[in-house]
Amino acid sequence: MNRVVNGVVNEVAYRMITLTCLLLLSLTVNAECLVRGTGDLGIVVERAAGSLKVLDTTAHKVLFRVEGLGDLSHASAVYSRDGRYAYLFGRDGGLTKVDILCGNIVQRLVQGGNSIGGAISQDGKLVAVSNYDPGGVKIFRADDLSLVSDIPATPFTEDRRSKTVGLVDAPGNRFAVSLYDTEESWIIDMNDPANPEIQRFTDIGRLPYDALITPDGRYYITGLFGQDGLSLLDLWHPEKGPRTILENYGKGQEKLPVYKMPHLEGWAIAGNRAFLPAVGRHEVLVVRQGTWKILDQIPVHGQPVFVMARPDGRQIWVNFAFPNNDTIQVIDTETLEITKTLKPGGGTLHMEFTPRGEEVWISVRDKDEVQVYDTQNLELIHRLPADKPSGIFFSARAHHTGL
Amino acid sequence: MNRVVNGVVNEVAYRMITLTCLLLLSLTVNAECLVRGTGDLGIVVERAAGSLKVLDTTAHKVLFRVEGLGDLSHASAVYSRDGRYAYLFGRDGGLTKVDILCGNIVQRLVQGGNSIGGAISQDGKLVAVSNYDPGGVKIFRADDLSLVSDIPATPFTEDRRSKTVGLVDAPGNRFAVSLYDTEESWIIDMNDPANPEIQRFTDIGRLPYDALITPDGRYYITGLFGQDGLSLLDLWHPEKGPRTILENYGKGQEKLPVYKMPHLEGWAIAGNRAFLPAVGRHEVLVVRQGTWKILDQIPVHGQPVFVMARPDGRQIWVNFAFPNNDTIQVIDTETLEITKTLKPGGGTLHMEFTPRGEEVWISVRDKDEVQVYDTQNLELIHRLPADKPSGIFFSARAHHTGL
Repeated sequence: MNRVVNGVVNEVAYRMITLTCLLLLSLTVNAECLVRGTGDLGIVVERAAGSLKVLDTTAHKVLFRVEGLGDLSHASAVYSRDGRYAYLFGRDGGLTKVDILCGNIVQRLVQGGNSIGGAISQDGKLVAVSNYDPGGVKIFRADDLSLVSDIPATPFTEDRRSKTVGLVDAPGNRFAVSLYDTEESWIIDMNDPANPEIQRFTDIGRLPYDALITPDGRYYITGLFGQDGLSLLDLWHPEKGPRTILENYGKGQEKLPVYKMPHLEGWAIAGNRAFLPAVGRHEVLVVRQGTWKILDQIPVHGQPVFVMARPDGRQIWVNFAFPNNDTIQVIDTETLEITKTLKPGGGTLHMEFTPRGEEVWISVRDKDEVQVYDTQNLELIHRLPADKPSGIFFSARAHHTGL
Repeated sequence: MNRVVNGVVNEVAYRMITLTCLLLLSLTVNAECLVRGTGDLGIVVERAAGSLKVLDTTAHKVLFRVEGLGDLSHASAVYSRDGRYAYLFGRDGGLTKVDILCGNIVQRLVQGGNSIGGAISQDGKLVAVSNYDPGGVKIFRADDLSLVSDIPATPFTEDRRSKTVGLVDAPGNRFAVSLYDTEESWIIDMNDPANPEIQRFTDIGRLPYDALITPDGRYYITGLFGQDGLSLLDLWHPEKGPRTILENYGKGQEKLPVYKMPHLEGWAIAGNRAFLPAVGRHEVLVVRQGTWKILDQIPVHGQPVFVMARPDGRQIWVNFAFPNNDTIQVIDTETLEITKTLKPGGGTLHMEFTPRGEEVWISVRDKDEVQVYDTQNLELIHRLPADKPSGIFFSARAHHTGL
């Protein structure tokens, strides 16, 4: 009998202990996620595969591959203020929230028909997406991607609204965006998320196609496809309205074919000078910030696409449009000389500097790899496999305006 | 017998399951650590208690309290490049590595008799500490705090070596430091950690007491206790050697008592202007970067200690030395007017901006609290309890030179 009782006791103990084990197991599930800092992580977009890889820039290795992100041509990404979540903006209108500590998709929605990038608010609470079709801006809560505000663009025919382009975040929990068809720039104040306050500026110039905001968040500069020059809005003094700067910036009289209108995000600000890609011409332009006058024109290998400053402003790295997109050139910002011409390989599409600038990571599409260069000796020091890599975005962007 | 066998089987199962549970328990231990991004975290030093609190700047709450950090008067901290580890430099020569995701001390050593701050190398692999006694710089591996290099300072008597001050990191995996007693500045090149290359500059000026490096990592500027003016070294052109700038910067002819020599880390660089605390006088000086000429003198409430720029450069926040250390003043960088005078409370010792500048966190010693202000409307929005708080250091410093 005693044994029987023992047996029963053991049966009970057995069940209780099993339950405890299941409970503990459920606790250990998130051991799949990493307990680690996010400051040295990033992602590289695998455009053709609709996937991304999570990168560890300290160990120079891939931590995760995340699939099912849709059409990632011209995809861009922003980060939550804690650096854990990347928000991907796909060409197909997809908005995907990826957890880079767990390597999975937290949430994905197709919020528009045809999207062209987005931004995250200064306080990190709002993610905005600009859409071609239907033309407008949609603003979502960063935590659960619920829709906060749907702001339709100005109509330009009975049934069509303008495309929106060049959406950026600005200090004071604002967004700035431009309207391609109706030639406007808007400042969207989201301090009361339920009631966005919109300041509209019209006649900013012919066919705005892209924009940038200076790293200090002061100047919103819109590129114009329909004319030479750029439209500048001083966000410290919006009451002054937009004005045209660099009147000769554009295709001008030369009839060089323009293979690709340069990204305006591809501007580099180093000290009080801006380095920017000429349109059509094989030149990088040097412009004084504030006066916006051209100080110099630097002849380069091809039509520049991205012109990026090493974080300390000592070097400018430039990549080029087809048929010269196998090349990178490095410019010294003191002498304005080209100090090195690199040949990473065909489809050298994008570059990202580590936050303190000791390395630059470069996507080389045709070699299916990301190459890592030491920016001090300009040597190739690492290669990581990636399937047709394009954009590279490091988590340090969480701490910057307009990135 | 069957029952007996059952009983025995259950006994065995019981033991096996118990072992499994212990195994699972050991796995769940790091569930005490947080799976989360580190980009929005920081620490506040509790000076008197020799402890710190880990801060969540998104939720505005304290995550952990970490004790046993020794003498934290004038303590400062730097971060690992992943943002997970804070390295604290204590006045007692203590170097402590704290894990802010787990809220514990990873490692602590007392590496010198009397220490005055440190820095982390651009690549994040080396942590350097400057010591008064014995005078010199010690350099440790960031991962395990093993000693890499012990660099004694220049002797100034038979048995005493100069104090080292103003240690900062510089691009190119270098450190810069100044020597108080022998009036030198050194550049320490750590590209080959086993064999530091040291460039020594002598006669830089009378009694250097502190230094700063500009955010771009180009200019190393040393404050002089023994004379007016500052010593400037252009790290892009060390061959030119140091030169004196701002010849009138210092106590000058006025005999105002200097309650506290201002921290040079307390300089703000906004655009191409530097805002710095006058010595002794109730003024903030505005200086053109590059020419280093004084453009303006802004009268303020007391002797400024920290003069800090909001990350977008639109505002300057200033705190003051005793007996005016209950006050903060906010200066508009366009008009140079004081837009607001705040009274956080006695012992308003330090400020730290969130990376994108929407908030500033302020230590108020005599109220045992950290106050959080909205930098747009300048309102107090949160209070967090802290025991005699002093320095506040956010993890975004991991991505900046000289912080």
